[in-house]
Amino acid sequence: MTELEKIGSDAKRAKNALLKLSEEKKNEILKKCADNLIKRADEIIGENKRDISFARESGLNEGLIDRLMLDEKRIAAMAEGLRQIAALSGVLNEVIDEFDRPNGMHIRAVRVPFGVVGIIYEARPNVTADAFGLTFKTGNAVILKGGKEAINSNMAIVKVLCDTLEENNVLRECLQLIENNDRNVTNEFMKLKQYVDVLIPRGGAGLIRAVVENATIPVIETGTGNCHIYVDESADINMAVNIIFNAKTQRISVCNACESLVVHEGIKDALLPALQRKLSEKNVELRGDEAARAVLGDDCIPATDEDYGREYLDYILSIKTVSDVDEAIAHINKYSTGHSECIITENKENAEKFLLEIDSACVYHNVSTRFTDGFEFGFGAEIGISTQKLHARGPMGLKALTTYKYEIEGNGQVRG
Amino acid sequence: MTELEKIGSDAKRAKNALLKLSEEKKNEILKKCADNLIKRADEIIGENKRDISFARESGLNEGLIDRLMLDEKRIAAMAEGLRQIAALSGVLNEVIDEFDRPNGMHIRAVRVPFGVVGIIYEARPNVTADAFGLTFKTGNAVILKGGKEAINSNMAIVKVLCDTLEENNVLRECLQLIENNDRNVTNEFMKLKQYVDVLIPRGGAGLIRAVVENATIPVIETGTGNCHIYVDESADINMAVNIIFNAKTQRISVCNACESLVVHEGIKDALLPALQRKLSEKNVELRGDEAARAVLGDDCIPATDEDYGREYLDYILSIKTVSDVDEAIAHINKYSTGHSECIITENKENAEKFLLEIDSACVYHNVSTRFTDGFEFGFGAEIGISTQKLHARGPMGLKALTTYKYEIEGNGQVRG
Repeated sequence: MTELEKIGSDAKRAKNALLKLSEEKKNEILKKCADNLIKRADEIIGENKRDISFARESGLNEGLIDRLMLDEKRIAAMAEGLRQIAALSGVLNEVIDEFDRPNGMHIRAVRVPFGVVGIIYEARPNVTADAFGLTFKTGNAVILKGGKEAINSNMAIVKVLCDTLEENNVLRECLQLIENNDRNVTNEFMKLKQYVDVLIPRGGAGLIRAVVENATIPVIETGTGNCHIYVDESADINMAVNIIFNAKTQRISVCNACESLVVHEGIKDALLPALQRKLSEKNVELRGDEAARAVLGDDCIPATDEDYGREYLDYILSIKTVSDVDEAIAHINKYSTGHSECIITENKENAEKFLLEIDSACVYHNVSTRFTDGFEFGFGAEIGISTQKLHARGPMGLKALTTYKYEIEGNGQVRG
Repeated sequence: MTELEKIGSDAKRAKNALLKLSEEKKNEILKKCADNLIKRADEIIGENKRDISFARESGLNEGLIDRLMLDEKRIAAMAEGLRQIAALSGVLNEVIDEFDRPNGMHIRAVRVPFGVVGIIYEARPNVTADAFGLTFKTGNAVILKGGKEAINSNMAIVKVLCDTLEENNVLRECLQLIENNDRNVTNEFMKLKQYVDVLIPRGGAGLIRAVVENATIPVIETGTGNCHIYVDESADINMAVNIIFNAKTQRISVCNACESLVVHEGIKDALLPALQRKLSEKNVELRGDEAARAVLGDDCIPATDEDYGREYLDYILSIKTVSDVDEAIAHINKYSTGHSECIITENKENAEKFLLEIDSACVYHNVSTRFTDGFEFGFGAEIGISTQKLHARGPMGLKALTTYKYEIEGNGQVRG
């Protein structure tokens, strides 16, 4: 048995024990975990300092170091996250469907945990507590593989959480961290199909691609968003400028930020100068096609085909001019990552067409794409945004961490 | 653009057109497909004869040749399958969830097709018509890759179906068959992520493993069933014998057949001799542990550890003796493929424990495992039995071929 198989086998044992833990008990433990994170903050911050100093030595950039850094305030936010999860209604054991068959069998579909969930993520230690909270609440054992730059921080956080589990007579193995940072171990983890039911990568496009290409465990693909806003001929110009400004600049590093504007040729002369003025407040760079540049001049640099496919995560917006809603839909379905797209229009028929034909998880009419988010949708928590169509699509709350099982009761039925 | 990318891109175009086709029109076309299969049966049978003669030349065994063979009766059954699918209620456009947010956004989750579905299967030409019927009904374009031994039969069936699509002004590319049998092409197909939303392998364990290991497209894993029946101490002996006889022998080659018996030591002396007598009607070979052999004698050969992990698909049953329901559950969860398991007991508490703790798609109490089937569950059709936990579990009907999309309506909401 390899080191990882041992982890997998321990997780399987832990998930069986978790099945018998009541919702109340789980919530109580989550709150104690929150208390202990705060009580033992110094211990975590001490280990985090080691990670930070290694990170500086190895020349990690300041943006990444900022994500890695923990202080009392951030630890308090982690703890608050666990308390919020504890306060959510449980989703397990819900009878999703129930019916009788002519032969007298009674069939129930019941919501149950996946069992063992694997999560692979980057050097963001806050994900460690968050991923534990969501999986524990939904009755899953979890195996975490975090970015190597955060290893000491993660080990410290996991120690606090596992100690709390143990103090409450729950198996520590409900939460396990893979401490070996060898790339081969990560690859083996992605194929640990005998023990792990579902794998969720959380991070940038490169991480997600690596998981999708290597995993044999079923994956929920999350995250990358090349989100489009299409401004139709009949749009309200003020609304369009406000929504685009919000979706582009309110937070540039997130997957639901707008990356590309598609504009109807009949409204471009009225829209683009007003939009340019507004976006210049944040120094947004515009990259457009010829028709857009004819309106905006040299302040808009020429867009290449590659621009239309990019998730900039930066103060940059590409612009494509189209002659009707059909051309807009075709352009978006070609370049989108299937995350979130929006039409701004006062034309009901065009809005309906857009909602029907755009092949993305979230399709908006006159609303900023920034709302694609578990909290904004009212799910109370979020494990990520699914950009695949299997299992869950869009913001994933607690239910996305469950599956169902058929329970069939009878009195001796056999098949004829 | 490779040959396969062309197929993928054509499928994407076809799926967009399918979105606008009404349920009535789709049902009408399915019925015309059924009519045309019967009208053009000679054409199909002629091509099937070529496959059969190649198969004999290359020494394919008679069991496989029988699966490959088409005659008028089997083509009529294919046609009847399409008519039955046409008669089912449609599942698209259902509003699965709908709610308002405090900021006035209205959110709807609507059931929509996957888009493009890929199906990889073995040399069973009846799957060709069946897979088309189910995917077309659910608004999906489909790309098929069938076993090379059935290529001429599949091409003939696809031609009839595509001609019917075209006669009804629907794009032929709603249904495409990969005609190139090069293994590299199949491997490329499994990674055609840009165009294909979901991949469903239908076939034996080897095929499924190859797809799971190589695909980057999300896969729904189907099929293999190492199904267990546990006879608890308080079981009704007659019921137990009847259920085991049915689950083991009614049809041995299917994934919901019973492969392993787990028996409480307190009932083995009463159960096993009666069971042995009944199973001897079908010459079932028994392979048991020492406790079972102590009762059954040399007619029961010793079981190895490997036996407990096998899906025999044959007149063979393994037997494991346990001292209580907990040991039974642990044994089953260790060896099962997560398909279907059954407890036979009159003890309500043990039944509940078994239903809760067994980690399989379908868990039965006093019912034969042979009922794990879309038709027997009343779904009216079946694309397969999922043995994974992502998306769909157990028998998959029409809904399993759909996903959902969030449609969000507002009047200028931006995120603060």
